[in-house]
Amino acid sequence: MNKVHNFSAGPAILPQSAIDASIQALQNFGGTGLSLIEVSHRGKEFEAVVAEACNLVKEILNLGADYEVIFLQGGASLQFDMIPMNFLAPGKTAAYVNTGVWASRAIKEAKMFGDVNVLASSEDNNFSYIPKDYSIPADAAYYHCTSNNTIYGTEMFAFPETNVPMICDMSSDIFSRPFDASKFDMIYAGAQKNMGPAGTTLVILKKSFLEKANAKVPTMLNYKIHVENGSMYNTPSVFAIFVCMHTLRWIKEIGLEAMGVRNKAKADLLYAEIDRNSMFKGTVATEDRSRMNVNFVLTDKSHEEPFLKFCSERNLSGLKGHRSVGGLRASLYNALEIESVQALVDAMQTYEKLQA
Amino acid sequence: MNKVHNFSAGPAILPQSAIDASIQALQNFGGTGLSLIEVSHRGKEFEAVVAEACNLVKEILNLGADYEVIFLQGGASLQFDMIPMNFLAPGKTAAYVNTGVWASRAIKEAKMFGDVNVLASSEDNNFSYIPKDYSIPADAAYYHCTSNNTIYGTEMFAFPETNVPMICDMSSDIFSRPFDASKFDMIYAGAQKNMGPAGTTLVILKKSFLEKANAKVPTMLNYKIHVENGSMYNTPSVFAIFVCMHTLRWIKEIGLEAMGVRNKAKADLLYAEIDRNSMFKGTVATEDRSRMNVNFVLTDKSHEEPFLKFCSERNLSGLKGHRSVGGLRASLYNALEIESVQALVDAMQTYEKLQA
Repeated sequence: MNKVHNFSAGPAILPQSAIDASIQALQNFGGTGLSLIEVSHRGKEFEAVVAEACNLVKEILNLGADYEVIFLQGGASLQFDMIPMNFLAPGKTAAYVNTGVWASRAIKEAKMFGDVNVLASSEDNNFSYIPKDYSIPADAAYYHCTSNNTIYGTEMFAFPETNVPMICDMSSDIFSRPFDASKFDMIYAGAQKNMGPAGTTLVILKKSFLEKANAKVPTMLNYKIHVENGSMYNTPSVFAIFVCMHTLRWIKEIGLEAMGVRNKAKADLLYAEIDRNSMFKGTVATEDRSRMNVNFVLTDKSHEEPFLKFCSERNLSGLKGHRSVGGLRASLYNALEIESVQALVDAMQTYEKLQA
Repeated sequence: MNKVHNFSAGPAILPQSAIDASIQALQNFGGTGLSLIEVSHRGKEFEAVVAEACNLVKEILNLGADYEVIFLQGGASLQFDMIPMNFLAPGKTAAYVNTGVWASRAIKEAKMFGDVNVLASSEDNNFSYIPKDYSIPADAAYYHCTSNNTIYGTEMFAFPETNVPMICDMSSDIFSRPFDASKFDMIYAGAQKNMGPAGTTLVILKKSFLEKANAKVPTMLNYKIHVENGSMYNTPSVFAIFVCMHTLRWIKEIGLEAMGVRNKAKADLLYAEIDRNSMFKGTVATEDRSRMNVNFVLTDKSHEEPFLKFCSERNLSGLKGHRSVGGLRASLYNALEIESVQALVDAMQTYEKLQA
C-alpha cells in the first residue's frame, strides 16, 4: 500500500516511533508478559510511564518545581467546566477572548458558573483573525485564551502582558514551537493533535495559582485532588498516556526550537502555494495564519469536490474542512513530514495545469 | 516466556482476540492505511465502531429501543457526580446503599448536590456482606447500588423490587452473567474490568428516565448532550472504545448464559479450595461472595508475603489485595481461563504441603 499523507485535524498523525512502541507494549508491556491494557495502573511499570510523561512535559517546556503536571480525562471540553468551577470565585469576573468554536464553548460553560467578561471577539468576521486590541481588567479572576483555532486556522503568536493569571487552551499547537510557558498559570491540551491519541488531556498548573482554587468542587472535577493523587485518583487512561509519553520522548529528541523551524517551513511551503495559485485562496488574516491548521478554499467553489477527490486519489487524506465552515483544511501537526506538504503542493499545481 | 496468569483487579485480563484486533488496527485501521489512533473519530470507519459497540451492548443485554447507550470519559468516578447533577432534583432525596469504597464515594459526591438517604450499609462489618433488609422510600429520586464490590469481594445476586428508578454501578461484574437489565433506569460501568481497557465508561440510560433529567447541567456532564451526539459531542476515547467493541463481540459469541456458567465454575473452584485448605480463609459472608473478586487471607498472616512470592514465582500475577484492605484478591473476570484458577489452586495446595 502506498503511503497515506495524513492531514487529519485530530485525532491526527503521530510519530511512527510512538505507534511502534504501543504495538510492542500491547504484546508485552515492560517485560511483564502481559499486554499494556491488562496491567494495573498502580504497578511500578505504569507508574514509571506517568512519571516520565510528566517530567518530559516539564523538561520540554522548561518548567520548574513551581508547576504541576497531570493527565486527566474528558478532553479539553471538560476543562471548559473545570476551570470556572475551580478558579472563578463568587463575586469575581473571568476574562475570555473569543476566537472560535472552542473559545465560544469555553465562554458558554464559564457563564454557567459566574460572571464572564468577553474582552474581544473575532466573530464579526467569521473568526478569521486574532483580536489584539483589548486590555485585561486588573481584577479579573483569570484571563482565558485559545492559542490555536483548529476549525478556523488562526493562531496566536504573541500573548498579552498582564498580572492576571493566564490560562490557555493549547490543544492544537502545544509543543509545536518554543514559547514562554512560565507566563501561564495554567495550560491545557487535549492530546489528540500534537501529543498523542484521543482519551487524555494534559493539564499544567502553577502551584501558586492552584492554591487559590475553590475548595468545594466535586472530587473528579477538583484539580487539587488530581494533583495530590498524581493523576491516579481513579484509573487513568493508561494506553493514551503511554502513547503520549513516547510522543513526548520524540518531541524532546527533536527539541522545540527545531520543531518550530520544521513546522514553519511546512506552513510556509503550503501558504506560498495558496498565494501563488489563483485556483486557491486562504481564508484568514495573513499575520494570524496558523502553522498547524491551514484553511483555504477553491476560488471557484465548484472545484471543491473534484479537487478533494483528486487529492483522495493521490492518498492525500483528511483535507475536508470542518463541517461547520466547509472549504479545505490541511493540518500540519508535528509528526507530518514536509514530504507530505510537498505532495499536497504538487497536487495543487497539477490540478491547476489540468484546468488550464 | 511462560504464560502469566493475570488475576489483576483492573485494568485486567482481556480476550486475546481483542488485543490482536487492536494491534492490527494500530498498524492499519479498517483499510485506511493509517493507524487507529491517527484517524478522525468522525470518519465512517470509526463511526461504525461506535455504532457496533452500542448495538452489541443492547443485543447482549436484551435491551430495546427504549434504552440509549453511550461511551463517556472520566471513569465510573465521574458518574458519581453526573448522576446527582442530572437526576437529583431540588427538594428530592436520593437513596443509596453503602457496600464499600466505591459506593461510599458515590454517596459522598451525591451529598454535594442534594439530599441523600443511605438506606443501609455494611460498613459496621468492614463491608463483608451485602445489606438486604431495607426498603426504598417511594418518593426517592432514584435508588443507587453497586452490584459488585471490587475491593471487598462481595456481589449482589438479587436486586430489590421497587417502582423507584434504579441506578447500578456494574463496573466490575457487567456482562459476567445473565441478569434482567430492563429492571434498571441506568447502568454504568468503567470499561477496565470485564469490557475493555481503561479510558472509557459505558452508560446505559432508559429514555423515559433521561427525559426527567435536569436541564441546567454543564454541557460535558449532561447526559442528554452526549446521547443527542451519539457519544461524539467531543472527541471520544477512540482506542478504548475500539477494544470494547471487540471484547463485546467476544462476549456475544460466548453469550451471557455460558459466560455465567463459566464464571461460576471458576469461582466455585477457588472458593472450594479456600474452604478446604486450612491455611486460607475467605473474608466475606458466604452467600455474598463475589464471582469476580475473590478476597481471602492466610490464616497465619506471617505466611502472606511468602505465599505471594511463591505465587509470583509461578507466574501468578496481581494477587495482592487492595492497599486499603490487605490480604489476597484473585480477580476472575470474563477473559480469565479456568486453567489460571486451577494453577492458583495448585499453588495453594503445593504451598500447604510444603508447610506440613
